[in-house]
Amino acid sequence: MRQLSGMDAAFLSLETSNSTGHVGSISILDPSGMSEPFDLAHLTAMLEGRLGKIPMFRRRLKDVPLGLDHPFWVDDVDFDLEFHIREVGLPAPGSQKQLTDQVCRLHARPLDRKRPLWEVYLISGLEHGKIAVYMKVHHAMIDGASGVELLNVLIDLSPNPEFKDDPIPFRPRKEPSARALLAKGAIGLASRPVDALRIAGTLVRVAPTLGKAVTPFAQLLRRRRNSGDGEIIQTANNRPPETPFNGQISAHRRLGISHAALSDVRKVKSTFGTSVNDVVLAISAGALRRWLDQRGALPAEPLITMIPVSVRDESQRSSMGNKVSAMFTPLPTNISDPVKRLLACNQTTQAAKSAQAAIPPGLVDGVTNFAPPLLMARAARVAFETGLIYRLYPSNLVISNVPGPDVQAYMGGAKLEAIYPVSVILDGQGLNITVQGYRGQLNFGLLADREMVPDVDRLAAYLIDELDLLIAAADKKIAADTTHKSTPRKKSATA
Amino acid sequence: MRQLSGMDAAFLSLETSNSTGHVGSISILDPSGMSEPFDLAHLTAMLEGRLGKIPMFRRRLKDVPLGLDHPFWVDDVDFDLEFHIREVGLPAPGSQKQLTDQVCRLHARPLDRKRPLWEVYLISGLEHGKIAVYMKVHHAMIDGASGVELLNVLIDLSPNPEFKDDPIPFRPRKEPSARALLAKGAIGLASRPVDALRIAGTLVRVAPTLGKAVTPFAQLLRRRRNSGDGEIIQTANNRPPETPFNGQISAHRRLGISHAALSDVRKVKSTFGTSVNDVVLAISAGALRRWLDQRGALPAEPLITMIPVSVRDESQRSSMGNKVSAMFTPLPTNISDPVKRLLACNQTTQAAKSAQAAIPPGLVDGVTNFAPPLLMARAARVAFETGLIYRLYPSNLVISNVPGPDVQAYMGGAKLEAIYPVSVILDGQGLNITVQGYRGQLNFGLLADREMVPDVDRLAAYLIDELDLLIAAADKKIAADTTHKSTPRKKSATA
Repeated sequence: MRQLSGMDAAFLSLETSNSTGHVGSISILDPSGMSEPFDLAHLTAMLEGRLGKIPMFRRRLKDVPLGLDHPFWVDDVDFDLEFHIREVGLPAPGSQKQLTDQVCRLHARPLDRKRPLWEVYLISGLEHGKIAVYMKVHHAMIDGASGVELLNVLIDLSPNPEFKDDPIPFRPRKEPSARALLAKGAIGLASRPVDALRIAGTLVRVAPTLGKAVTPFAQLLRRRRNSGDGEIIQTANNRPPETPFNGQISAHRRLGISHAALSDVRKVKSTFGTSVNDVVLAISAGALRRWLDQRGALPAEPLITMIPVSVRDESQRSSMGNKVSAMFTPLPTNISDPVKRLLACNQTTQAAKSAQAAIPPGLVDGVTNFAPPLLMARAARVAFETGLIYRLYPSNLVISNVPGPDVQAYMGGAKLEAIYPVSVILDGQGLNITVQGYRGQLNFGLLADREMVPDVDRLAAYLIDELDLLIAAADKKIAADTTHKSTPRKKSATA
Repeated sequence: MRQLSGMDAAFLSLETSNSTGHVGSISILDPSGMSEPFDLAHLTAMLEGRLGKIPMFRRRLKDVPLGLDHPFWVDDVDFDLEFHIREVGLPAPGSQKQLTDQVCRLHARPLDRKRPLWEVYLISGLEHGKIAVYMKVHHAMIDGASGVELLNVLIDLSPNPEFKDDPIPFRPRKEPSARALLAKGAIGLASRPVDALRIAGTLVRVAPTLGKAVTPFAQLLRRRRNSGDGEIIQTANNRPPETPFNGQISAHRRLGISHAALSDVRKVKSTFGTSVNDVVLAISAGALRRWLDQRGALPAEPLITMIPVSVRDESQRSSMGNKVSAMFTPLPTNISDPVKRLLACNQTTQAAKSAQAAIPPGLVDGVTNFAPPLLMARAARVAFETGLIYRLYPSNLVISNVPGPDVQAYMGGAKLEAIYPVSVILDGQGLNITVQGYRGQLNFGLLADREMVPDVDRLAAYLIDELDLLIAAADKKIAADTTHKSTPRKKSATA
């Protein structure tokens, strides 16, 4: 029986009538090569056969009496798989807009705290015979499960996965009594020294109401993290300017998705000597600039973005936890020229890198192992934490870049065409841009508050428009360089 | 600016994390005769053109500061029609089970208190080219709107309805200030005598925690109702027996639907000299008996059901409010023979009728005007009230019979084939059977707690099985009577 950490419990406490504590993803599948239909029974059989490998999927929260301590995870003796796996269709024609409308309604709903904290939706009726699988998993849970376990449940690298019968039959352990939980000793406040971390964990929960007073405890919280995980790289010293998406959020969401070829992004990156991350930041800055300008809401100074970055090094690759830290950096929304904007992004991230000895590698570049859900959760976790204390370390939005495999993957025998992330927004931070790399493609998922950014699909499209501008600039530069290079060669040839 | 009554406000206060305060309906439509597609744009255009006729659809709640008084209805200056009209599809094959699964997930979700309290879902992909429209409306709102207004929005008696542009352009009145609400005088507690009704209204909200102590106030509440509306006809003096569906409900629902030909029901009714209501009660008792018996949970004594009944008389027909009272009556689940069960139902309702001078007419028989949503809301309202005080007037379930027109109706130009009610369940009363009459058909909608009655669709099917038994018994009796009658005639012929 595992107890939630203070931070896990804080994720639960963060949920309000407006904000939810889960992350999601949309997988787009092509079932055309399958011999059997990809229906609810198929997805259920697949998940059922794999549940034994992921015990957290059959555990639910058990509160300690009177809330005297953090909750525990206990086996759900009434586990009901049908509750967790659902189906829904898209009306004709099954457009991308209809898909994102459907998903953001599902994403806006909190998970039921009385059951294991995950749901999977099979969404049929997508254009061109495609189907989608939307999955949502609570942070507090995903943190307990390893990313590898979670992946084994849904994604394969083979088109003919085995749906074995549950190798470990589910024999739920009886739910502990209230007395047993109290006796667990975790709350023996009278008999042992006060646990500073637990107190700190509690303070995280009440931090938003405490404001400035929480500073020393926030420092305490930061101090307890070591090995770079969760550390904050501060490259922006200014407070973020005001924008329409930095206020109290509503209970409703908008989701925008778009995608770009990684080869295009790489062409831009190589031509201008930047990184893939820099290109992502530059097109985000360009899209935001365009959107804000149209509303007459473009601040004179740059926006400030929080960027979760991986600090995992080779020696940690096989260890379970991902190492994630956060970078707070200015986003050059004040620069109108796309190329100048890209170079400014590069300068900023260079500065951030030199500010820390352990250089955070670009999240797409050079990361080959495949663990998007966990990484995404970690990234969002940092967002949560910093959202909590955003008065101390504020940013206008989160831009997160999650790596993925270059090889073709499958889900339940269907070709996985793309995975779009559906992340988290918070009071004060009503916009999140997360990028998921997969099979030579960058898939953008933009989650926003419904009222703050009603046209987030437009913002998603602007990202691609901005990339097109950079591709054109790169082509021009390549042509110029070739002319420039060939001219001397010609000269030497004629010499 | 209209203020909510104490009872309206009580409906809002009744909503918990497990129970919701709205009623719903599923309309099954056949769009095959239409010249244009019945899509989201079509439904939106229809509703948009009619919103002016139903002001409540653009009003939202406005709380009085510090909760000092009941909320007010104010124009929603940010009214966003797109939020209220949504679409979703059913995956293939679009079965009835897939429809009810989808609807009960939608029905389990509370309405957003910050917006006008209604939602409409266009559900496509139903078998045989049909579509469904699911509508949910909060009680607190439906009570303010007249049933006629509400009907005009969605249902027509002509296949070519006019979708006129909103005849009354929406010019929302500015939201009143907190000061204005306080100045409204409604909370001048110090300056005027304490309002007994308001105090009673407040007590209704806390009644479940007060238990027995609330009795005198419950009496006060009942005393304030006159003209039969809301009065309770008590024909059962026993406490209801224990059944699996009388406990604390969860946040999740199951929905079962089935339908029967009114001609079949009438044949049974006429053959055995009972009413349509009696037949509905008898088949409900039979289905419940069967379901409980299978679980080894059939009580020796009859269940007790609450039946909302209309007490409207001819002089009130043109007045707006429907007159609804409630009958608490034993349901002969202890009788195994279907015909004896039917006759027992008849005796019980006869007893109830003689217990009250104003005889409650059968809700299907003789009621010709068409106001199902309002009637349904009223019925559920009585269920709410009595649910609140169910320790005083307890019942095992609600069985409600709602009238409808005999003529063909239309929605947005599509043929209306059936309307299934989706009602309300409460703590202590986790099952509701509501019957909606329409065009020679009885449509049953059974709403249950997901965990208490996971197979509510089976219960819905048992209703029809039980009706079949009664039809067979009626045929047998008719045949016997004919033989009996013809024998003497033959005799007299030979005499």
